[in-house]
Amino acid sequence: MKESMSQRVERKYPGKKRVIDAAAGRRDADLVLKNASFINVFSNEICEGDIAISEGLIVGIGSYKGEREIDVSGKIVSPGFIDAHIHLESSLVSPSEFAKAVLPHGTTTVVCDPHEIANVMGTDGIDYMIKATENLPIDVHFMLPSCVPSTPEDESGAKLSFEDLDPYFENGRVLGLAEMMNYEGVCDGDKDTVSKILTSQGHHKKIDGHAPGLSGKRLNAYIAAGVYSDHECSDFENAIEKLRLGQFIMIREGTAAKNLSALISLLSPEYSSRCMFCTDDKHPSDILFEGHIDGIVKKAVSAGVDPIVAMKVATHNAARYFLLNNKGAVAPGYLADIAVLDNLENFEVKTVLKRGKVVFDNGRVTEFSSPIIDGRLREKAENSFCMRALFADDFKNNSPLGIIGLVKGEIISENLGKAENIDVSEDILKVAVVERHKNTGHIGVGFIKGYGLKRGSVATSISHDSHNIIVVGENEEDMAFAVNKVKEQRGGIAVVDNGRVLASLPLEIAGLMTNKPLLETNSLLENAKTAAEKLGVSKGVDPFMTLSFMSLTVIPEYRITTKGVFDVSSRKYVN
Amino acid sequence: MKESMSQRVERKYPGKKRVIDAAAGRRDADLVLKNASFINVFSNEICEGDIAISEGLIVGIGSYKGEREIDVSGKIVSPGFIDAHIHLESSLVSPSEFAKAVLPHGTTTVVCDPHEIANVMGTDGIDYMIKATENLPIDVHFMLPSCVPSTPEDESGAKLSFEDLDPYFENGRVLGLAEMMNYEGVCDGDKDTVSKILTSQGHHKKIDGHAPGLSGKRLNAYIAAGVYSDHECSDFENAIEKLRLGQFIMIREGTAAKNLSALISLLSPEYSSRCMFCTDDKHPSDILFEGHIDGIVKKAVSAGVDPIVAMKVATHNAARYFLLNNKGAVAPGYLADIAVLDNLENFEVKTVLKRGKVVFDNGRVTEFSSPIIDGRLREKAENSFCMRALFADDFKNNSPLGIIGLVKGEIISENLGKAENIDVSEDILKVAVVERHKNTGHIGVGFIKGYGLKRGSVATSISHDSHNIIVVGENEEDMAFAVNKVKEQRGGIAVVDNGRVLASLPLEIAGLMTNKPLLETNSLLENAKTAAEKLGVSKGVDPFMTLSFMSLTVIPEYRITTKGVFDVSSRKYVN
Repeated sequence: MKESMSQRVERKYPGKKRVIDAAAGRRDADLVLKNASFINVFSNEICEGDIAISEGLIVGIGSYKGEREIDVSGKIVSPGFIDAHIHLESSLVSPSEFAKAVLPHGTTTVVCDPHEIANVMGTDGIDYMIKATENLPIDVHFMLPSCVPSTPEDESGAKLSFEDLDPYFENGRVLGLAEMMNYEGVCDGDKDTVSKILTSQGHHKKIDGHAPGLSGKRLNAYIAAGVYSDHECSDFENAIEKLRLGQFIMIREGTAAKNLSALISLLSPEYSSRCMFCTDDKHPSDILFEGHIDGIVKKAVSAGVDPIVAMKVATHNAARYFLLNNKGAVAPGYLADIAVLDNLENFEVKTVLKRGKVVFDNGRVTEFSSPIIDGRLREKAENSFCMRALFADDFKNNSPLGIIGLVKGEIISENLGKAENIDVSEDILKVAVVERHKNTGHIGVGFIKGYGLKRGSVATSISHDSHNIIVVGENEEDMAFAVNKVKEQRGGIAVVDNGRVLASLPLEIAGLMTNKPLLETNSLLENAKTAAEKLGVSKGVDPFMTLSFMSLTVIPEYRITTKGVFDVSSRKYVN
Repeated sequence: MKESMSQRVERKYPGKKRVIDAAAGRRDADLVLKNASFINVFSNEICEGDIAISEGLIVGIGSYKGEREIDVSGKIVSPGFIDAHIHLESSLVSPSEFAKAVLPHGTTTVVCDPHEIANVMGTDGIDYMIKATENLPIDVHFMLPSCVPSTPEDESGAKLSFEDLDPYFENGRVLGLAEMMNYEGVCDGDKDTVSKILTSQGHHKKIDGHAPGLSGKRLNAYIAAGVYSDHECSDFENAIEKLRLGQFIMIREGTAAKNLSALISLLSPEYSSRCMFCTDDKHPSDILFEGHIDGIVKKAVSAGVDPIVAMKVATHNAARYFLLNNKGAVAPGYLADIAVLDNLENFEVKTVLKRGKVVFDNGRVTEFSSPIIDGRLREKAENSFCMRALFADDFKNNSPLGIIGLVKGEIISENLGKAENIDVSEDILKVAVVERHKNTGHIGVGFIKGYGLKRGSVATSISHDSHNIIVVGENEEDMAFAVNKVKEQRGGIAVVDNGRVLASLPLEIAGLMTNKPLLETNSLLENAKTAAEKLGVSKGVDPFMTLSFMSLTVIPEYRITTKGVFDVSSRKYVN
C-alpha cells in the first residue's frame, strides 16, 4: 500500500531532526572531516572548515565535533565524481566489480545506459542491471536504451518500443532516455523514434543525444524534438554549435573515442557550466591504469584548465543536468559523497565517502556484499547463446564475397572489392557474424584485409550493437572451433589455432561481462591479446575491439552482418 | 480516467511532428522573428539569426521562413523575465490586472506566494489564486504559504498544516513551499514546521527561505533541513555566507525592501549563476513608474553589471532553480516566452511574446479574457469580513496603554512607554487592530507616536500578516466610522474626518485586492494618500504601508495586535 504523507512525515522526521540537531551543534555529528579545504562549487573557490556529516548527509560547514573525526588538513575535499554516460558493459565486469574498480578513483555516481545487455536480453537485460546495481557503494543511475536494435540490419536479441520502456521510467534511478542514436529518425519525425522521446518527456525525464557532426536545421530539429545533450562532439566547432542551441555537452574521454583535447576550449568560464565529463566506453586496462573521471580532470588541468572549473564539470554540472538535486556539492543537505584528493595537481584519491561511509581509504575498498541475482534473470543472463554447434562448412561459400578493408587506427573501413578465397599472403582472411540469439542459423560471411592473422581464428561475442558472434580466421575449421568455444564458455573471447584454445576470456553474463574481478579479467584479456598477436594480428590493430566494431552498420564503408557484407553508403548487401 | 502513455503519444505526436518539420525547414514556422540579435544564456554572448516559432515553442535559430514574420533588426531579443518571488496581493489588483500591468515590462512568468490571501481565506485563498491565474498571458506558478498564521499571536482567518498543503503539491503549477519565515522553528527542529518541509520534499519540490541575518550553525541547520534559497539578504556578507553554503540568492528589489545595491557584487561571473531577481512586494505606483524585473535589470546595468549577466539572472537562473525546464532561454525546444528590447541600455520593452503569441506590442497589451471565478469562491473572497459594526466605545479604555514609536523610514518601532489619552499636541494617537475573520470581537487598542495625524482617522484591511483591520485616529468616533467604512466596502482603505469619508480604496477581493485596473487603483490610492496627508500624516510616513507593518509581531519593538500592544523582544503583551 502506498505510504500516506502523514506516514512519510512520521518516518522521515526523526532522521531530519537528527540532521538539524547535528547541524545546529546540539549533538555530535556522525563523522567530521576536520580542517578541510574543499571545492566550493557555488562560489568557485576553495573554502575551509570542518565538514560535519550525519545520516549520510553533509549537515554543516564550520567548527564541528563528531563521534568520529578524520583530519584532512592539507588535502582537498571534492564532491564525488560523476560519469555522465557510460555503458558499464564495456568494463567487461559485473557492476559490483566495476564499483570496486572505480571507487579508488573517487567515482561515486555513474549514469549508465544498458544498451549492450538490452540488445542481448531486452527488458530482462535492463532488469538484470537494475538488480545488479542495487545498494552498491556507488550510485548507478540509468538512461533507458533508445535504439534496440540499433539499425534495421541488426539481428539483436530484442526490440524495444516505447511501450516496453514506459514502465521503467517510474523507477527513481531511471533518469531518462539514453543516447538517441537514431538522429536521422528524429529529424525526419519518424513516429516510433519520436514516441520514445514523448514517453520520456511524459515522465518529465531527460533525453540524451548522440549525433556526431549533426548541424544546421537538422540539428535544430533534433534539439527542438527534446534532445538536450550530446557526447559525440569531436571538434570544437560542432560542440559550440550544439552548446549555443542549448545542448549540454558531455566531453567524452573513453577507450575508443577521446575528445578532451579537441574540446578543451569548452572548459572556460563562458562555456563550462554547460559541460560534463563522460567515458562512454572504458575498457579494463584503461580503468586500471588511466583511472576514470579523475584521470580526465587531471588531463584537463595539465592542459591548462582551471582546476575548480574541471572539478565542477566532473561533479556538479552532471548532477544539475540530471536533476540529482542532492549531489555534486560539499554543502549542507547534500549527500556525503566525497572524494578526498592529495592536491589539485596529482588528483590522487586518498579517501572516498559514499553517503557518509568510508568506502575507500588507504588503498583499499571497504568490503561490501554484491547484490544477489537469482532465479530466472541470472539463468537467462548466463545462458544467452541460443544456437547450434557450428562446422567448417558453415563458413564455406563458393561465390565471390565483399572484402572489408581495415584502416589502421580508425574504426571506419574500406570497400576493397571481392574475393573468393582466403589468401594469407595477401592478408585476406575470412570474417563472419553468427546469429546467436534466436537460433535462426543466420551466418553472414565475407572477407577482411588488414587484420594480419597468419593462422587460427579469433572470435568474440562483443560485436556492436547486437552482440552476435563475430569471428575472423585463416581457416574455416578453426573459425567453427572458436565460435563453438565462445558458445561453450557462454560468451566472451576465444583465440584458437589448429583445434587448440590458445587463450580465452569467458564473459558469462550475457556474453558481455564476467563476475571475475577487473584485475583478473584484464589479465585474461591481455593474455588473449598476446595470443592473437602471436597468431599474426597486425600492430596497431586491437584484435578484439577493432573486430567488435566491424558489425556496426552505421560506420562506413563495408561491414559484416548476419546476412553478409553490407555497404553502409548504399545501405545494401554486397553479396 | 488517466490517459495511458499510448494515448498521450497519439495526442502529442502531431504537434511534435509539426515542431520537427518547422525546425528542419520542411514547412514554414508559425512565426519568425527575422534578423534577431538575442541573448544566448548558454554561451553568454549576443548571437544572431532568425528565431523560428511553432506550436508555442522556439523551434530553430538560423535562416527561416514563417507564415508571419516580424523584423527585429537592431533590437535585442531576450527570454521573458521571471519574478522569482512575489506576493501578487501587494499589487492591490486581481491577477488579471496584474498581468496587464507587468506584460509591458516583459514579465512572462511570476512565482507567487499567496501568503496574504491564505491568511484571510486559508486553502480557499489558494484555490482562488489558482483559479484567478488560469490561462493568463503570463504564467503564474505557486509556492505554498508555509506560515499561516505567521506567529502564535496572529488571529488569522485560517491555520494551514502540512496536511492542508499536501494535495496542492500535485498541481503542476505548484513548485514548492514558499518562504519558510519560521526559521527559528526549523533550526529548533519543530515538528509542525519541519513536517511542511518534508511534505514538499516528498513531492520532490523546492523550499524557499526567508531568514534575515541567519548565520553560522543555525544557518547550516536551516539549509541542511532543506531550505535552498533566501530573499532576505540585505548585506553582502550574509548573502555570500548563504551562497557558499548552497542557497540560491533571490536579490530583492521591491517597494518596501530594496537590496540590489547592497548585493550588487553578487552579480559577478563567480556568483551570479546562483542569483535571481524578485520583488517580493511591489505596490501599484512602483509597477507603473519603476517597472518590474526589467527595472531591476536596468538598475543593475547602470551600476556596472554586465548586461548579459543581469539578463541571465532575470530569466535563465530562476527557470533553472525552479526546474522550469522549458523556460529561460532563446533556443529550440524552449517556450517562446520572449521580450524584445530596444537595446541593452534603456531596456525598453517593445514587444512581448507568450507561447509564441504577441501579447504586448506598440504600447498595447493584447486583449484577453480574465478567468471567471464563480460560485462559492468568489462569494467567499468578496465577503471576507465577519464582524459586527463598531462604535466609539469599542476603542475606549481607561487604563494606560503602550505607545508604539514610529521610526522614520524604517519599519521597526520603539517602546515609548505608556499613555492614557490621545494627545495631538504630542502626536500621541490611538491605534487599534480589529479582528475581522471570525467575529471574535477582539479589538486590541494602544497608542502610536510619529504618525502625525491631526484630525480624523485612517483604517486599512491590509495589515500583516493576518489582515485584520488596523486603524489609527485622533478620536474614537472617526475610528469606528473608518473601520465600518472598510467593512462596508468589503475591504481596503478609508480616510475619514468628522463622520465624512474623505477618500477610500475598496479592495473587495479578500480585503486585499480589487478587480479594478491598476491605473485606477493607483489613482484611488494616491487620492487616499493625499487625503491622509491633508489630515496631517507626517512626511516620510507612508500612511498605509507603515500602518500595515505595525501589526507584524516579528519586527521589534512594539506592535499592535487584536489583543493589544505587544513587546516583540519579550514576546509579551504590554497591557
